[in-house]
Amino acid sequence: MTDNSVRRHVLSVLVDNRAGVLSRVSGLFSRRGYNIDSLTVGVTSDPKVSRMTIVVTGDDFLLEQITKQLSKLVEVISIRPCPHSETVMRELALIKVATDEVKLHQVLESANIYRARIVDVSLNSVVIEVTGSEDKIASLIRLLEPVGIKELVRTGLTAMGRGGGVL
Amino acid sequence: MTDNSVRRHVLSVLVDNRAGVLSRVSGLFSRRGYNIDSLTVGVTSDPKVSRMTIVVTGDDFLLEQITKQLSKLVEVISIRPCPHSETVMRELALIKVATDEVKLHQVLESANIYRARIVDVSLNSVVIEVTGSEDKIASLIRLLEPVGIKELVRTGLTAMGRGGGVL
Repeated sequence: MTDNSVRRHVLSVLVDNRAGVLSRVSGLFSRRGYNIDSLTVGVTSDPKVSRMTIVVTGDDFLLEQITKQLSKLVEVISIRPCPHSETVMRELALIKVATDEVKLHQVLESANIYRARIVDVSLNSVVIEVTGSEDKIASLIRLLEPVGIKELVRTGLTAMGRGGGVL
Repeated sequence: MTDNSVRRHVLSVLVDNRAGVLSRVSGLFSRRGYNIDSLTVGVTSDPKVSRMTIVVTGDDFLLEQITKQLSKLVEVISIRPCPHSETVMRELALIKVATDEVKLHQVLESANIYRARIVDVSLNSVVIEVTGSEDKIASLIRLLEPVGIKELVRTGLTAMGRGGGVL
């Protein structure tokens, strides 16, 4: 039974680690008008193979189309959809927050609650490193916004299946 | 004075958050034969703006060429090179390690040394989340390799300037 509701899908894709593969994959999405919510790519234990995590919003039909198109690319070795319940999904964000003596205490407390780490301190700002689901990061950002976020950078989502199985 | 030695450069690039921007940026690199070591992209505090962190290996001339070409793209708002000494650079990796009762203790100890977190446990494997510089992650991977790495996924590097300054 296909699900026609529009929601976020996460795909793990193994690809040959060669020049131009990112361009080929992202070009496929842009030519067909599929919008990518996020894409991360990194090397695996095999230096010849990279692994992409792609997040797209759409219904099951879109997911099927994307999977079909991706599997036609010669660089693509394998594709696996990542159901939320069976997948560890993580993102890393660096957040620079404006601080003074009063605010600093509040920022450190917020960071502590979210198991975030202070990775840089200057006279009037701190940089916080936080990892977690997108929801967790969004929630910390909401908490810090009234204090004053100066700068924010995120890696995009990466994903791995729970349990002993391997892509 | 330009430095002709080949080394890794990290660029922070602010871009319009619109469909196809990733394809345009990665296409520019692939058409010109510049190989991207890693590229991450995520939204900023302004939902209309995304921020990319691009890592490339080359000399100062290559860096200059890339900066020039990137600045010609209409989607690119600003570009800043990130000198290593003035930048917080972080990557997130998920590592699935094969374990048994004996190995588990050793894996937990390694994770502890690297301030890594256990994010999934099954009968014969654990998933470790680690963040840090590429060197730190590479070092943990080397430590876990003899135990048995089943799966590895990385986000690629993200970067933010130290101190109070903003891109």
